[in-house]
Amino acid sequence: MLSKYVPSVEWLKRYNGMDFKGDFIAGLIVAIMLIPQGMAYAMLAGLPPVIGLYASTIPLIIYAILGSSRQLAVGPVAMVSLLVFSGVSTLAEPGSDQFVSYALLLAFMVGVIQLVLGLFRLGFLVNFLSHAVISGFTSAAAIIIGLSQLKHLLGIELPKGANVFGLLYETMTKLGNINFYALLIGVLSIITLIIFKKYVPKIPGPLVVVVLSSLAVYYFNLDQQGLSIVGDVPQGVPSFSLPGFEWDSIISLLPVALTISFVGFMESVAVAKAIAAKEGYRINSNQELNGLGAANIVGSFFSAYPVTGGFSRSAVNYQAGARTPMAAIFTAVLIILTLLFLTDWFYYLPNTVLAAIIMVAVFQLIDVKEAKHLFKVKKIDGWTLIVTFAATLLTSIETGILVGIGFSLIVFIWRSAYPHIAELGYVEEEGIYRNLNRYPNAKTYDRTVIYRFDASLYFANIAFFEEQLAKKINEDTKKVILDFSAVNDMDAIALDELDRIIEEYDSRDVKIMIANMKGPIKDLVEKAGWAEKYEERISNLPVSRYVSK
Amino acid sequence: MLSKYVPSVEWLKRYNGMDFKGDFIAGLIVAIMLIPQGMAYAMLAGLPPVIGLYASTIPLIIYAILGSSRQLAVGPVAMVSLLVFSGVSTLAEPGSDQFVSYALLLAFMVGVIQLVLGLFRLGFLVNFLSHAVISGFTSAAAIIIGLSQLKHLLGIELPKGANVFGLLYETMTKLGNINFYALLIGVLSIITLIIFKKYVPKIPGPLVVVVLSSLAVYYFNLDQQGLSIVGDVPQGVPSFSLPGFEWDSIISLLPVALTISFVGFMESVAVAKAIAAKEGYRINSNQELNGLGAANIVGSFFSAYPVTGGFSRSAVNYQAGARTPMAAIFTAVLIILTLLFLTDWFYYLPNTVLAAIIMVAVFQLIDVKEAKHLFKVKKIDGWTLIVTFAATLLTSIETGILVGIGFSLIVFIWRSAYPHIAELGYVEEEGIYRNLNRYPNAKTYDRTVIYRFDASLYFANIAFFEEQLAKKINEDTKKVILDFSAVNDMDAIALDELDRIIEEYDSRDVKIMIANMKGPIKDLVEKAGWAEKYEERISNLPVSRYVSK
Repeated sequence: MLSKYVPSVEWLKRYNGMDFKGDFIAGLIVAIMLIPQGMAYAMLAGLPPVIGLYASTIPLIIYAILGSSRQLAVGPVAMVSLLVFSGVSTLAEPGSDQFVSYALLLAFMVGVIQLVLGLFRLGFLVNFLSHAVISGFTSAAAIIIGLSQLKHLLGIELPKGANVFGLLYETMTKLGNINFYALLIGVLSIITLIIFKKYVPKIPGPLVVVVLSSLAVYYFNLDQQGLSIVGDVPQGVPSFSLPGFEWDSIISLLPVALTISFVGFMESVAVAKAIAAKEGYRINSNQELNGLGAANIVGSFFSAYPVTGGFSRSAVNYQAGARTPMAAIFTAVLIILTLLFLTDWFYYLPNTVLAAIIMVAVFQLIDVKEAKHLFKVKKIDGWTLIVTFAATLLTSIETGILVGIGFSLIVFIWRSAYPHIAELGYVEEEGIYRNLNRYPNAKTYDRTVIYRFDASLYFANIAFFEEQLAKKINEDTKKVILDFSAVNDMDAIALDELDRIIEEYDSRDVKIMIANMKGPIKDLVEKAGWAEKYEERISNLPVSRYVSK
Repeated sequence: MLSKYVPSVEWLKRYNGMDFKGDFIAGLIVAIMLIPQGMAYAMLAGLPPVIGLYASTIPLIIYAILGSSRQLAVGPVAMVSLLVFSGVSTLAEPGSDQFVSYALLLAFMVGVIQLVLGLFRLGFLVNFLSHAVISGFTSAAAIIIGLSQLKHLLGIELPKGANVFGLLYETMTKLGNINFYALLIGVLSIITLIIFKKYVPKIPGPLVVVVLSSLAVYYFNLDQQGLSIVGDVPQGVPSFSLPGFEWDSIISLLPVALTISFVGFMESVAVAKAIAAKEGYRINSNQELNGLGAANIVGSFFSAYPVTGGFSRSAVNYQAGARTPMAAIFTAVLIILTLLFLTDWFYYLPNTVLAAIIMVAVFQLIDVKEAKHLFKVKKIDGWTLIVTFAATLLTSIETGILVGIGFSLIVFIWRSAYPHIAELGYVEEEGIYRNLNRYPNAKTYDRTVIYRFDASLYFANIAFFEEQLAKKINEDTKKVILDFSAVNDMDAIALDELDRIIEEYDSRDVKIMIANMKGPIKDLVEKAGWAEKYEERISNLPVSRYVSK
């Protein structure tokens, strides 16, 4: 019972030296990666960099205790940071104390929402996010995030809240104000990060650029040349405090809190499932919600903004040999040590380097291959991706994901409203009734139509069913055999309509019979009294039994 | 070509004396019914009664020329009148000139929307309105309409815009102000209408109560006792005039115009289809949209408010022997004659009688039987009805229908996301593979699972598919035969996931094979290269071919 809600009980029991070795090395590597990333993502969220470090401590420990993934690296991530920025920046000035306090309240709300979803076992909701939607949405968000960092990379001021095209336009008009050092260091950092990622993956690129750029600023006094730097990072661990609960703020933050809860969970569970499948264990998505929810709630008491499991850091954690959530605890401890003793080291770190780290991290999320693949296999799924991508880019990240979900569900409904249909004939060699369009030589029967409707019957397609059936029938037709092998479900509306259709055809001397009825459909029509009314005309027997009659 | 867009060309060619006799009598009966109803519904819409008569002239003639139903009786109806009231009363004072001019603009907008929908062949959209939604929505609207007439029946003032419970509460507090004559005449009218409807259906009850009550008011001077009467009805036919086009008004009226276009079309096409089925001709729903659209546009130039085909009048028209749309033209001519010569006769008609006519007309739309039937056959469809009913009653008529559509589509998606599944065994007597739960004695095979998933595979149920499959498999399983006979469609997301699932089971030494693949699914997986990758493991052959392998 305890281990159901606290999965750590299980792995702690069997913890051994091998686990320790793998976990410690992975924890160290992730910590080195997380320190610059945490500060960068906090900057992206409109928060002081130190908040990103705070979010890399307590939440990691809570998730390690309660989460069901063994390798997931929880902490600040780009997408959630962008959502925090877009949600809170309408209420307070980015970087201000008020902004920070809203971000903490938001983390608390996200945690409560996730915990409630988990306790009510609503994790399945994430299944309604099609992969095409996730891919289109992620690619668009990556572009928005990348462009939002242009101002740091160029060292200019840009209006907040503008959309992608607005940002590009404003950037054009302000090209004259570019800070040369910001641009130079930023571009060099991007090149370095890409080279290290590709050719020297063992050495963490972010650490290299952070160290080198800080030294350069320090020795050449570049901060006196208008280059913007991180500056003072307060020393010490965050103390316990409650977020400010105000009813008005809660209402205003609710939409973005819901979006973060959902998007964060989705990102987290996708990467957790991928790793779990490789390792042969299973992820319980409701327990994931509990773990993330608790991490965010407790985190919000210790100055952490919303966190979730990240794609790239989890992959690094796994590849570096993490075997249990203990790796994440090591990461958290190393970051706490950093907060206690190393904060001075970040004083000369230029913001343009953090921007470069963000840009390199997010641009690899743009997935053109997936779009091509979907278009090749099934065009409409490719369009779902494009629509989601365009909606996210042109409106906002929250609207984009809603448009994507709506579009993908409409596509699904559309397909079931206009399904594939087939008139069947008998293929003697195989002993099977098959589509006459594909098997033109199949045997047909005198005055008889065998008709297969390839969908569940329900209110939205019963009219189409009737129309198409009417087209197959001519004056000579005396018998219609409906092959119901593909009718998986039927609602009461379709049932009543079908009853009327059979009666109408009866009155025109065309006898409709139903073969291959599935159990659940048979139960349903019997409830409606069809067993007496239509007797041997409906059954779960194959088409052949009706041809002879 | 002409007859495609102007169906009247067809029936006019073959018009004969028999047609004339049936049409004339039906046209006369409908006119007698329509005169009081037209005035009553105009009152319900917040318009002077004469507007209801105007709406019973030109629109009928235009529909007769362009519509595809031969018996549909177009004109003012209760539901649309209520929508006009709820949409326009937020912009102007009911009964005022401004209110009338908004109602005419609304008729024009409704006409344009319907015509555009018809020309773009979007009539199929009405299929997405489940009968459960229509039934719940109509019952609730009937209650709202009926209660909205309480003020006339009791002769009191009630605040407009209140919801059902507000209205009932306000009525309670004002019971002291009741006008005795209004209540008496109203209740007597209701009783008379019900009795005539039930026992003397040949004589039109509305005509009887209109004549008798007018005489009573005239002889006993009841209008001087505070009884509210129709008063002056302007003589003569409406002259041509353009509705006032103002951008702001158009924007404000757009939501209600869309609702009326859709709801009006739905009501119209439902009754037209029912009559056409009995008469053995077909309704073209796009041509219906063209006909109704043109009727509303041209009507709006001659002071008509929005019209559509009505349930009860169309039934009366049909039963009275109408054979062609000429019947509607006779009705229109008779109403024009009334406007020219008989308007004085309506001076003493009490409003309470019009209220009684509305109440009796709408309360028969409340359909409890349908709700019971749906609950008996399939509970969830009954709930769709209840949800729509409650939403319409508690919020508004426009919101109610949207909630209903949304709920019914969510129910459908929900069902396909958690479909029926079956593990199969061989039933020797029948030579068929059947569900082991229903046929426990069916033969199973060593280390083999035969699994049938009764739904199309798509992004929202592929996770469920995988989960359920995993449950069927134990350590001994070496072979899984997926019976794909019920998989009617598959999207690219499900395809990729299925590919991954097969690979994962391969790596665990469990061989997945797919039998009974339909043509469209086979095409799809071949596009994704499965023919080479999985070769003889996937096919359209029956399960039996895989059992032996």
